[in-house]
Amino acid sequence: MQPYALLEKIRKEKPLVHHITNWVTISECASLTRSLGALPIMAHAREEVEEMAGISNALVLNIGTLTSELVDAMELAAKAANKKGIPVILDCVGAGATKMRTNACLRLLKNSNISVLKGNAGEIGSIAGVKAEVRGVESVSVAGEPKKIAKNLAAKLGCVVSITSKDDIVSDGKRTFLVRNGHEIMGEIVGTGCMAASCIACFCAVEKDYVHATAAALALFGVAGELAAEKTLLPIEYKRQLIDEAYSLDETAASNARVESC
Amino acid sequence: MQPYALLEKIRKEKPLVHHITNWVTISECASLTRSLGALPIMAHAREEVEEMAGISNALVLNIGTLTSELVDAMELAAKAANKKGIPVILDCVGAGATKMRTNACLRLLKNSNISVLKGNAGEIGSIAGVKAEVRGVESVSVAGEPKKIAKNLAAKLGCVVSITSKDDIVSDGKRTFLVRNGHEIMGEIVGTGCMAASCIACFCAVEKDYVHATAAALALFGVAGELAAEKTLLPIEYKRQLIDEAYSLDETAASNARVESC
Amino acid sequence: MQPYALLEKIRKEKPLVHHITNWVTISECASLTRSLGALPIMAHAREEVEEMAGISNALVLNIGTLTSELVDAMELAAKAANKKGIPVILDCVGAGATKMRTNACLRLLKNSNISVLKGNAGEIGSIAGVKAEVRGVESVSVAGEPKKIAKNLAAKLGCVVSITSKDDIVSDGKRTFLVRNGHEIMGEIVGTGCMAASCIACFCAVEKDYVHATAAALALFGVAGELAAEKTLLPIEYKRQLIDEAYSLDETAASNARVESC
Repeated sequence: MQPYALLEKIRKEKPLVHHITNWVTISECASLTRSLGALPIMAHAREEVEEMAGISNALVLNIGTLTSELVDAMELAAKAANKKGIPVILDCVGAGATKMRTNACLRLLKNSNISVLKGNAGEIGSIAGVKAEVRGVESVSVAGEPKKIAKNLAAKLGCVVSITSKDDIVSDGKRTFLVRNGHEIMGEIVGTGCMAASCIACFCAVEKDYVHATAAALALFGVAGELAAEKTLLPIEYKRQLIDEAYSLDETAASNARVESC
Repeated sequence: MQPYALLEKIRKEKPLVHHITNWVTISECASLTRSLGALPIMAHAREEVEEMAGISNALVLNIGTLTSELVDAMELAAKAANKKGIPVILDCVGAGATKMRTNACLRLLKNSNISVLKGNAGEIGSIAGVKAEVRGVESVSVAGEPKKIAKNLAAKLGCVVSITSKDDIVSDGKRTFLVRNGHEIMGEIVGTGCMAASCIACFCAVEKDYVHATAAALALFGVAGELAAEKTLLPIEYKRQLIDEAYSLDETAASNARVESC
Repeated sequence: MQPYALLEKIRKEKPLVHHITNWVTISECASLTRSLGALPIMAHAREEVEEMAGISNALVLNIGTLTSELVDAMELAAKAANKKGIPVILDCVGAGATKMRTNACLRLLKNSNISVLKGNAGEIGSIAGVKAEVRGVESVSVAGEPKKIAKNLAAKLGCVVSITSKDDIVSDGKRTFLVRNGHEIMGEIVGTGCMAASCIACFCAVEKDYVHATAAALALFGVAGELAAEKTLLPIEYKRQLIDEAYSLDETAASNARVESC
């Protein structure tokens, strides 16, 4: 299905997207989800995450400001999501920067079925076990070619792996796509990575072929980013534009989605 | 007292409005409170909430991202607020979506005196014990007429109950008002409901007749929403406008408040 | 070194600035840090704060929405930062409003080496032990002259003390500076104080003479505030402008920095 057809499906079906996420970008992730036409719900108490996941259509796990309690809640929610058969998106923010972050991702990948694992090259490399450097949440370096790392890790884990950067890589181990949308300023703005994960969740909520859904999500998020960049390159005004462009996306704009098989 | 006279009182007296709230809209609630002329203070540690409530002029409890620790803190703060005689506003975000949320509200209503209970139709219906469906924080359906639900629940609880929607209902069981301000886009934007609760708290901080204070608060918040909608219908830009219009509200604009007895 | 030279150093070296901060302004603090050219990392789990501080170039401790767990994490992080020799900035938000806040600051000052203690007159007065009134996070009154309080406290603690207000005071006990930049609307906007602390951390990350770094940081933050005020005086639009002006600061604008020895 074409990216725009999926966006229309989101707008029509209004999937509920449960987030267990960080306190920095939680507001923006909710807003981006809403701007795409889906309904965000942020809930992290261990006492309610299973019930909330059970009424949701997708689950986002984002370890940006993790605690051990939060990772416990993520595991409970992921298992409930697996039981219901809804997609689980794991954004491995800062994996590789500290042992706690890497281990939290490895634990979630081991104890539940993650549908889409998303991160930058350093984060995904750290999870893949290749030599990588992550400063805070910034990818500094990774040993090896990102495309191969994503493909091999996807094959090993049996899920979709996405490495986001100027061009985004999306692979399920067999099929690998390059998403050529977006604008370089997105890498300089706090929150774009987290919003991309929320966007992936919205698309996976309405399309079971997660590798296509993920590529479509990143392509249209990138298109919104390109449109925003035509209006401003000031970071905070840009972030506002980005979400408002996602809200306004029409079929003509969406036709600029550039997803290539590779 | 007229809505604008209350707003002027807020601007003059600068009441301190203590919030125990969620991590999604905490920044916006603080900003909206400040934009009305009141002073926001966000504090949720059990060790300090009683002392903080004790120096405050109103208390907002918002369960949007509740945990059991947070609900404990809310109960402590509510009891301290009761002791001091300041209004307590409970925003029952997502009640009905999970048992934890419904039960947290019922517990707070049982163990402390809530001055104003606020929510959408599904949330308030869930607390009233009528059949209702809530998806995340969205009201899907409620069995019965919202006006009657609000009036009966208010009479039963002995407090003000407000159901927010396109038109807002405010009742203390005897007097029931319909607030006909606002713009439908407000229902599509993350944070407007939470900000409305903060707005109610600011008005109740300066006016002991809480049913009037609540109606006035929702009317002027709605007026700000109408003014914002004249400028933009893009969600993030709209949210900025909404808070800035609340900051700029003058007597002419405030005269558009439409509160009807019903 | 001149303020602008320090800003250029931040932009070039991209220091990693670890924050343990509050949930109200966490997003803005990350954005302001990024807009200055530094890399923000928000991390508060006790299990990772030492490791994170160990790869960082500065540490910000902000008690705006403290809990006892968070203060424990702050102490661990501060000790790790001390070990590595990176600057630790303590923003004593609401000290004096509750005993918990005052005591948290006193504990951190006792058990670790704070490089820069920052707050408003009431907050710093409360820590200095002089009679002061703080309503939430607002300074109401303080007994004594702020300049003397800052100077004496700095001498006693052996660190830099900064009192922010319309004019900002920065002292290390021997050298005392008055920063005459900024705009009075900054005092009315949620988050400017927290962002100022993040700004100080960025500058201290690249300049070991913390009294100069702090004065330079506040001067340039104030210059950004002056530029923003030329564009708008609406609070939310102003906040956006403020961060975007910080991002755009050039040498000409920076030459308006007004730091006076006093």
